[in-house]
Amino acid sequence: MSRLVKPHGGGELKPLLLSGTALKDELARAKGLKQVKMSSRETGDLIMMGIGGFTPLEGFMTKLDWQGICDGYKMANGLFWPIPVTLSTDDEGVQEGDEVALVSDTGDIMGTMKITEKYTIDKAHECMQVYKTTDLEHPGVKMVMAQGKYNLAGPVKVLSDGGFKAKYGDQFMTPAETRAKFEALGWSKIAAFQTRNPMHRSHEYLAKIAIETMDGVLIHSLLGALKPGDIPAEVRSEAIQVLIDNYFVKDTVIQAGYPLDMRYAGPREALLHALFRQNYGCSHLIVGRDHAGVGDYYGPFDAQKIFDEIPKGSLETVNMNIDWTFWCKKCGGMASQRTCPHTKDDRILLSGTKVRAMLSEGQDLPVEFSRPEVAAVLKKYYASLSAEQNVKIELKGHSAA
Amino acid sequence: MSRLVKPHGGGELKPLLLSGTALKDELARAKGLKQVKMSSRETGDLIMMGIGGFTPLEGFMTKLDWQGICDGYKMANGLFWPIPVTLSTDDEGVQEGDEVALVSDTGDIMGTMKITEKYTIDKAHECMQVYKTTDLEHPGVKMVMAQGKYNLAGPVKVLSDGGFKAKYGDQFMTPAETRAKFEALGWSKIAAFQTRNPMHRSHEYLAKIAIETMDGVLIHSLLGALKPGDIPAEVRSEAIQVLIDNYFVKDTVIQAGYPLDMRYAGPREALLHALFRQNYGCSHLIVGRDHAGVGDYYGPFDAQKIFDEIPKGSLETVNMNIDWTFWCKKCGGMASQRTCPHTKDDRILLSGTKVRAMLSEGQDLPVEFSRPEVAAVLKKYYASLSAEQNVKIELKGHSAA
Repeated sequence: MSRLVKPHGGGELKPLLLSGTALKDELARAKGLKQVKMSSRETGDLIMMGIGGFTPLEGFMTKLDWQGICDGYKMANGLFWPIPVTLSTDDEGVQEGDEVALVSDTGDIMGTMKITEKYTIDKAHECMQVYKTTDLEHPGVKMVMAQGKYNLAGPVKVLSDGGFKAKYGDQFMTPAETRAKFEALGWSKIAAFQTRNPMHRSHEYLAKIAIETMDGVLIHSLLGALKPGDIPAEVRSEAIQVLIDNYFVKDTVIQAGYPLDMRYAGPREALLHALFRQNYGCSHLIVGRDHAGVGDYYGPFDAQKIFDEIPKGSLETVNMNIDWTFWCKKCGGMASQRTCPHTKDDRILLSGTKVRAMLSEGQDLPVEFSRPEVAAVLKKYYASLSAEQNVKIELKGHSAA
Repeated sequence: MSRLVKPHGGGELKPLLLSGTALKDELARAKGLKQVKMSSRETGDLIMMGIGGFTPLEGFMTKLDWQGICDGYKMANGLFWPIPVTLSTDDEGVQEGDEVALVSDTGDIMGTMKITEKYTIDKAHECMQVYKTTDLEHPGVKMVMAQGKYNLAGPVKVLSDGGFKAKYGDQFMTPAETRAKFEALGWSKIAAFQTRNPMHRSHEYLAKIAIETMDGVLIHSLLGALKPGDIPAEVRSEAIQVLIDNYFVKDTVIQAGYPLDMRYAGPREALLHALFRQNYGCSHLIVGRDHAGVGDYYGPFDAQKIFDEIPKGSLETVNMNIDWTFWCKKCGGMASQRTCPHTKDDRILLSGTKVRAMLSEGQDLPVEFSRPEVAAVLKKYYASLSAEQNVKIELKGHSAA
């Protein structure tokens, strides 16, 4: 019997991606169906349902699900879920009962859906409940507000993995694949380290604290869309790999990616991150400072606190909280605010903007901040950008965490 | 309701130390009783029963308890217990049914006991089961073999804390006191760090890994008898205190001591360490390399493995395993064999003998090995010893862990 945490809901993984003849037949049928265009976020969600990452969902959510999740973290069937997984359209012609093809923003047929409900939502309510703001400067709010007038619910069949496997190879692992890998390594206590950025020493420290007391860490990178100015997934992946190769013990860490877009919902997104990590087989999610946050919309430890606020037993995967981490000169080592009694002046702290500026100018980062091998990968990337792009990125600012 | 782990056995703490009139009356009565002399180890065990550290014991163990523990970690009543807590004598005149006064090796009346059973044991069997050897070079074996011919069982009344409170003040905390302190600080996840030596950076690192993810750490020093050549408790306590004052965040760590002698039983003693830490209110016991071991009698991680071998639910307090720790030059930081992929040559490793020699000669220790403030306390101690004592100690060797 597996010693891994059970998939969310307590049953088996439920990947909705068809294969073989079923896939071929459904693709042929899909070509004759009316098309509904998905946003990048919706496409990511569909692929996640395809690979079983959103187990036990069977399709896009109903109004009752939406309402229950916004107001009480619960789907209509009572299952815990922190953020609505919905599909929207402006198409007046699409009706309940229709069978439609789901098409990505690049025009590819990604799935089919039987529409069981067409409904409207109070977008501002979703934003206030999920993002705690209706400020359009918040990228998640902007995304919700840009959705179509109607939401469409219904079961889906998924017909594509979005090309992630082709693009990222072994690094794009499905929940079934990470689980098989964990079993093969004999792991059961596994911390997921969520990242959308390259790993500097502060992130290495977080991962290593977990490794000291658990079986291993899954460094789990977001492969979906990010904010403009964030480091592209390929560069990030290369920078993480040189770190693993030079500074981690073999078979204590696995690098993999998942297909979602960032929502930047802070605390609620941390819960979603834990939920789908449960499907990937991880017993813990490392939750640091300002997890999945953006700007100043959330308190730095709100994403840790929310795990204590949800009903007990909502998730099997639990949070492993770690405070803000850094190199402290007086400690002569990596530390966090929980383990370093010294002052800000003793710590090597660089803002994302500063790091970017230094790398763009070809400067070295302090070895206490970033491993030289990692910095070299990032320097090469910035050198490949035009001067104009670098200035643009610099003006946008950037969160290092 | 307390969020702390329950005392061993699931009931209330059971301190057997009398107070007030009951103490006065029993002391007066004890003076008229036949005396049984206890060894240092037996005296420590009695004091531990006095302060509730050996809850729920009510006295020294019977033959059935002894047998059950040696052969299956279980007292006659079925309760998990890893090492016999017995009292011995050579006195032919002491009989079952006698009331006796229990006297320390320094002649102080420590308690009274109603003898319910006088029995003999197979000492070699106890040694093989508990210490896994009958080699008289093993200090635990030597201790058992030096015991009296007979064991005496029966309920005790404890009349003294052995003067530990007077000698160590606030640092000598009873289980009721540590529990009250944890409650006051709002702690529930607490790791006990067992030590009988000063803390160098490797030990600081172990404690800090626990602090990163838990509420706090109890640095719990043995105040009882050690091997010749070990650092005296007062010096150790001072060295630990300067470390806490300079390198730990306030209210993340508590230094306290407990009155037992070391048995050096390795794996079995690690279980005993976890058992009484449960009474002190700790949810975890940090178990490093060669915990409570001596010489080469135990594999370096036997004391970690044994926690997986005992029946589930034997203890509420669980082990937090950490590998061998050190400073690695290539990592540029503290690490363990689980987090450092580099080689022995990259690591700063000093034997206990080497450390002692350097300190005795007034040399500085590398800052990657020991905090200068800690090294200064130890240097002062070695400088206070005569040259002859230093040579003797050096010849004896010394385990730094």
